[in-house]
Amino acid sequence: MPKTETFDREEVLNKVTELFWEKGFNGTSMQDIVDATQLNRSSIYNSFGDKQKLFQQTLLFYQQHQQAGVLDGLEKLPAKEAIRKIFEAVLEAIDMKINHRGCFLTNSTTELASQDDQTNKFLKSNLEGLTSLLQSILERGKVSGELNPKLNVEQTALYLFSSIQGIRVTAMLVPAKESIQAVIDRSLKVL
Amino acid sequence: MPKTETFDREEVLNKVTELFWEKGFNGTSMQDIVDATQLNRSSIYNSFGDKQKLFQQTLLFYQQHQQAGVLDGLEKLPAKEAIRKIFEAVLEAIDMKINHRGCFLTNSTTELASQDDQTNKFLKSNLEGLTSLLQSILERGKVSGELNPKLNVEQTALYLFSSIQGIRVTAMLVPAKESIQAVIDRSLKVL
Repeated sequence: MPKTETFDREEVLNKVTELFWEKGFNGTSMQDIVDATQLNRSSIYNSFGDKQKLFQQTLLFYQQHQQAGVLDGLEKLPAKEAIRKIFEAVLEAIDMKINHRGCFLTNSTTELASQDDQTNKFLKSNLEGLTSLLQSILERGKVSGELNPKLNVEQTALYLFSSIQGIRVTAMLVPAKESIQAVIDRSLKVL
Repeated sequence: MPKTETFDREEVLNKVTELFWEKGFNGTSMQDIVDATQLNRSSIYNSFGDKQKLFQQTLLFYQQHQQAGVLDGLEKLPAKEAIRKIFEAVLEAIDMKINHRGCFLTNSTTELASQDDQTNKFLKSNLEGLTSLLQSILERGKVSGELNPKLNVEQTALYLFSSIQGIRVTAMLVPAKESIQAVIDRSLKVL
């Protein structure tokens, strides 16, 4: 008989993402994964590979789900509003009380960027994706006259990326929405 | 015979701090600690307690050593220069090529702030210490007329704290000094 998967991959990836997000890569054991998914070890290995391979799949899963709502219609907004929308999505996640876990990608940066080449590569490509998006919005704002034509697009995009990382770390210690909103307002003043 | 420690506590704490900083709390095993310190398990337990207690001592050790050079003479500098000095210390660490590990306290926030109460408490008190310092510098700048008298000191201090966190995460992926310098310059433009 051909092997068929008797579970929903999406649902399993969702559960394992939650687990790695909450406890980190090193804090999560194969047994935790077995318990959370209710699958046995051999099913997990056959369908997703080892813990390291499974982790890579959760990074991608998280990235895709996180971006889904935010990117919609971004190109139709004026530059400053588009950038504010990206920051507001960060705030929304904080307000949904899931902030205590921070951002899965930010957390994986501090845990693994210096430890694991594959994760480092993924996170660098995530950084490049987000800064490219920010650069294209900033360029658009310069062309339309909304932003200062002398604005250094590359440096400003990295500054905005850095601000988002900082907000995600800070909100793990200061979860008050109004405090984080004030940090966002100040971060966007350079535009 | 009375028990005496035959090792240098400072030196041992330094080695264990390096280890936790590099690999995180969950990524470090008691065996790693034994290997790095060349002490046996019972000596470590007797002198420092379990892995969790040892970790708390390394957080404090790191905090004290990190602050040592930065705080000197800060009160004699004009406000903007004093704040820039704090940011330049972050940049200096990055330039010393130890940046790939980020900041031990930032990394511990993303790994443990939502997982471990004691670490959360330590990190919150570290945040309060740094934001209080920033607030007192900003207040001084308002009094002297260097800064806008309407500046919201509390919110600006949290913004600066958040910026520092962001820079430390970002530098783990983009270690180029000039890129991080540009992020710092933009972060300080709100002053």
